[in-house]
Amino acid sequence: MTSFVPAIHAKAISLDKKSLTMCAGSGSGHPTSCMSIGHIVSTLMYHKMRWDPKQPGHPCSDRLVLSEGHAVPIVYAAFADLGGLIGKEDDLRPCVDADLETLRETDSVLDGHPNPMEGFPFFDAATGSLGQGLSVAVGLGIAARLDELDRRIYCIIGDGEAREGQIWEALDHMMDRNLTNVLPIFNCNQYGQAGAVSNQQSAEVLEKKLAASGFNVLRINGHEPEQIWSAIDSFVENTTANGSPIAIVAETVKGWGAASVQGTGWHGKPASGSALDKALSELDEQRVRLVTGIGTADAPVRLELPTNSAPTPGDLPDTPDFRDAMAEYDMGHLIARGSLATRKAYGIALRTLGRHNPDVIAVDADVSNSTFAEMFAKDPITADRFIECRIAEQNMYSVGAGLSAAGKIPFCSTFAKFITRAYDQIEMAINSGANLKIVGSHAGISLAADGPSQMSLPDIAWFRSFATMQDHRGNPGCYILQPSDAYAAYALTMAMAEYEGVCYMRTLRPDTEFIYDDSTTFNLGGMETLVEGRDLLIVATGYMVHEANKCLDALDQAGIDATLVDLYSLPFDENQLLDLANQNNGMVLTIEDNYGGGFGSAVADAITADGGGFTLEQMHVRRIPKSTRTPDEALEYCGLHHTDIVARACEMLQVACV
Amino acid sequence: MTSFVPAIHAKAISLDKKSLTMCAGSGSGHPTSCMSIGHIVSTLMYHKMRWDPKQPGHPCSDRLVLSEGHAVPIVYAAFADLGGLIGKEDDLRPCVDADLETLRETDSVLDGHPNPMEGFPFFDAATGSLGQGLSVAVGLGIAARLDELDRRIYCIIGDGEAREGQIWEALDHMMDRNLTNVLPIFNCNQYGQAGAVSNQQSAEVLEKKLAASGFNVLRINGHEPEQIWSAIDSFVENTTANGSPIAIVAETVKGWGAASVQGTGWHGKPASGSALDKALSELDEQRVRLVTGIGTADAPVRLELPTNSAPTPGDLPDTPDFRDAMAEYDMGHLIARGSLATRKAYGIALRTLGRHNPDVIAVDADVSNSTFAEMFAKDPITADRFIECRIAEQNMYSVGAGLSAAGKIPFCSTFAKFITRAYDQIEMAINSGANLKIVGSHAGISLAADGPSQMSLPDIAWFRSFATMQDHRGNPGCYILQPSDAYAAYALTMAMAEYEGVCYMRTLRPDTEFIYDDSTTFNLGGMETLVEGRDLLIVATGYMVHEANKCLDALDQAGIDATLVDLYSLPFDENQLLDLANQNNGMVLTIEDNYGGGFGSAVADAITADGGGFTLEQMHVRRIPKSTRTPDEALEYCGLHHTDIVARACEMLQVACV
Repeated sequence: MTSFVPAIHAKAISLDKKSLTMCAGSGSGHPTSCMSIGHIVSTLMYHKMRWDPKQPGHPCSDRLVLSEGHAVPIVYAAFADLGGLIGKEDDLRPCVDADLETLRETDSVLDGHPNPMEGFPFFDAATGSLGQGLSVAVGLGIAARLDELDRRIYCIIGDGEAREGQIWEALDHMMDRNLTNVLPIFNCNQYGQAGAVSNQQSAEVLEKKLAASGFNVLRINGHEPEQIWSAIDSFVENTTANGSPIAIVAETVKGWGAASVQGTGWHGKPASGSALDKALSELDEQRVRLVTGIGTADAPVRLELPTNSAPTPGDLPDTPDFRDAMAEYDMGHLIARGSLATRKAYGIALRTLGRHNPDVIAVDADVSNSTFAEMFAKDPITADRFIECRIAEQNMYSVGAGLSAAGKIPFCSTFAKFITRAYDQIEMAINSGANLKIVGSHAGISLAADGPSQMSLPDIAWFRSFATMQDHRGNPGCYILQPSDAYAAYALTMAMAEYEGVCYMRTLRPDTEFIYDDSTTFNLGGMETLVEGRDLLIVATGYMVHEANKCLDALDQAGIDATLVDLYSLPFDENQLLDLANQNNGMVLTIEDNYGGGFGSAVADAITADGGGFTLEQMHVRRIPKSTRTPDEALEYCGLHHTDIVARACEMLQVACV
Repeated sequence: MTSFVPAIHAKAISLDKKSLTMCAGSGSGHPTSCMSIGHIVSTLMYHKMRWDPKQPGHPCSDRLVLSEGHAVPIVYAAFADLGGLIGKEDDLRPCVDADLETLRETDSVLDGHPNPMEGFPFFDAATGSLGQGLSVAVGLGIAARLDELDRRIYCIIGDGEAREGQIWEALDHMMDRNLTNVLPIFNCNQYGQAGAVSNQQSAEVLEKKLAASGFNVLRINGHEPEQIWSAIDSFVENTTANGSPIAIVAETVKGWGAASVQGTGWHGKPASGSALDKALSELDEQRVRLVTGIGTADAPVRLELPTNSAPTPGDLPDTPDFRDAMAEYDMGHLIARGSLATRKAYGIALRTLGRHNPDVIAVDADVSNSTFAEMFAKDPITADRFIECRIAEQNMYSVGAGLSAAGKIPFCSTFAKFITRAYDQIEMAINSGANLKIVGSHAGISLAADGPSQMSLPDIAWFRSFATMQDHRGNPGCYILQPSDAYAAYALTMAMAEYEGVCYMRTLRPDTEFIYDDSTTFNLGGMETLVEGRDLLIVATGYMVHEANKCLDALDQAGIDATLVDLYSLPFDENQLLDLANQNNGMVLTIEDNYGGGFGSAVADAITADGGGFTLEQMHVRRIPKSTRTPDEALEYCGLHHTDIVARACEMLQVACV
């Protein structure tokens, strides 16, 4: 018998036992899931992964993404055993056994599911909402390739979890890029929460599906150290060879080693009291059977350090302003036309950013010729850093989280509507502290002809919810940005890149007239007063700034001296807005081309928190749009045409429309 | 040559030409996608589908789900040719060629993407956001099986679209249930929007993947009538045989028949002017080559009518009240305990509904023992109508839309957090006019120990956005319901079943004390005043009703006579709330255990629309939660503990806390 075999058995049994006692102590958790991966985790963390417990977040070390995040106690147990460092950036200390007893406590860094931001930098991303980890691993793998780092990414995925379509999106993406530095390990323990997994997620069918996808599949017994060892060796060899990516299908036992906690009814249920004692003693029996008497159980662990170092970015040159960038790309003549779509300005900004900062990555989902990420994709200087995710938005945003964890600044774009598919992934990225830039084109109803299946309508409400709270850095969970012209779009793209955290920018399909020039400063949290009046504060955003602007003459004729503010950011400076409202007799009209709960509600929140006597009316989309041939017709259909705005303003101020 | 061959070629060419001219006329659309499915659509709609153009929504007819919705013009063209009926329910009329010229116009029922609610009842659901159609087809297929209807469901899926993981979730679901009455047809035209599709979505790899999943795969040339005909015959034969489900992989040409519009650069781009003339003449040449001189091009179409009829539901008995239901299930003793989790009350209500209404279906995603949908699953009377979707939420909610389109009342449950993955699918269901009931358990932060990866936090903001607009029936796009006790949960589940439209109900993990009894009436849009005071209106919801209730004594001691309202619905009766606010000096404090943009913002919207002088403070989650051992600790961590509420109330009213 190879010498490492009893060592791995011994370690797995020890970690399994700790998982059981940790979960029993916390009164919740998933010990039997832990026990199904005890041998795999032991082999990886003690033998095969090149990492340093004293530098758990080292940018060159191998990584483990625990996609089935609920099995995290066993990783915590190994980490404490190895004395890995835990804590927030400035306050790291070794994890010890006593920490394990704090699992899921308020003050503990050992959260119920993996999260680096709670003080566990061994992990790259928060997991626990299933099906996302492999995409994160793909992001890490792509970044390693771009940086020419010999870094290996291991990802453990549950069999039940493999039902999530995102897993198959990520696998396709691995094949597209031949990512041999990423190893998906399917933990086939045969049980989900409510019962046995489907035959479609059995080891046999998973093996067939993976092979059909082009993987070299290694099907192993996940509790046999030699099989695990050998499969990982094959993966390691293949990272420098030219073979197809490898995937491991590991047949395991949920609650391995303790028959009393196996089968249905034991998912997410800690054994306690005599049931715990029984399970622990069954594991002791396994130790007698598999370890005792062999004498090599305490074979030293073999942790190799990372073999090369990360690139250190140099000083970055300043980016040119919009006009200069346009000139640089021989697009200067477009300036003279006086209008340009904000999505095109985004493409120009993205290309410029890419040329100036090697960490900027552009990611898109088969619509780069609509979002204009193609400007980055087609520039020979940046083309290598364009990641085509195809029609698979969930994978794209989790790949973005992985790229961010590797120090990149990913800009991930698609139609704003289709981003909805990845809201869960985006929330997990926010929880992970990712530096993710989300760009949604064809926003709102100005898309017109394509109809509501392509329009983003409740998006502002959802993203705004994150603007009402703070992330782990004390910043808004997300900034929402909606530029109304090309200058603003360009400048806000630059501002997003400089900020560390999650931003969502909405761009428009149609050309919009220039309002600004390069002298205007745009800040996250800012707004711009376009016209100062004293009777009515009109707060508009995006396309509606232009529609509101069309009203001013008519309002003037009706005797209304209106103020017009371009509210291009959420959250925003509430005092600035309240001052403007006060200068307009407290009369406020908000206009946005999405469903409610967005900019208008943000203004309502600000006004009511102040307690002053304001009157607010909100104009937003109040019916399901349909196809129209032109944006103007879409506005009419939804009651947001400039004539509707004039009528509403006159009604508010009780004056006759002219 | 078989006689139907030239007929199908002739029809396909005719429809291809119409697709080109329709898109040219509207100035947008995807004619080349249409041309890739011309032969398939002709074979289905003119020969193989059993349907009646005069009854396009007939509940027993075969169905076509066009998952790649952007190819819809060719279906419109066939429909006009066949004189199918279009229009809203009360105003149906035959579609004629002149209608085709109205594609994408404001007043046209021929929307840019399929949508039955715009007046095209041939379709069952709105499509256009890719990857969802096969799940809708699965829902229709399951309903047909439950109703013992010999109904066949055809679904056309793009190859680029097949990258969406949801497609693979739906395919797994088909295999789980051996749904041989559903036929997925993969349209492999080799091009997405931004470029060629990945090799992972090539006909060859799709064939391998489908075979690995267990399908009997028929790979055909999608422009050869005999191959299409024969493949569909195989499917039809298999619906009554016991074979594995069949899938068709059709190799097609994007822009078939007109070389000048093939290849990259022609996605979603109508040919116009001379390019249009050229393409049309190329198609005429195809007609010469494939049709002229054979003489059978005008072979009569063969449309069989549906072969059996739908079940007609009889009068439904009244459902018992909560206490009686508990007694019926031998759970009466739990009433005496004085508390029960709302998720358990939901399970009891669901089981009761299922016993009383054969159209009620319970659908869950591997967590039925957490959501308590298992009460329905384990009752022999209802067990057949429990649909286990496993860990695949996107598929689950689109299956729900399909079940709804077949007349069922689907209740689809999982953790509220995981519903996020299906927000795009849910929006499409709202657009489709689906009668979908969405139930999310373990909502908010009272889940505690499992941490934020399992907590729903921005969910209220997102669903509320739909409460600010109206669906096609003139109702709120979605009702959001959050019962605070078991009686409310039971009653609101019943209310959801009686209402036609989309509802989202949030249930809680912990037990909560009974507040109500069976005499309380709960309505969509309602609220309940628990305590009437005069100094401060406290508006709480869900778990926070109980936390607010704990404050009342302390507030009383501080001299604050508070009103407590349980706001269990969005939208709500705004006048009722404003009256209560006025009775409390305009002082309002809202409390919810999710991120902002939710109930508090809804109150802010109502208050500001009124224009009265109110002061509103909103308490909600303002940081990313983490694991805590108890709900109480989670409330403390997020500043929502009852002591925090007391402090805030005292501050608002400028009185000293006792």
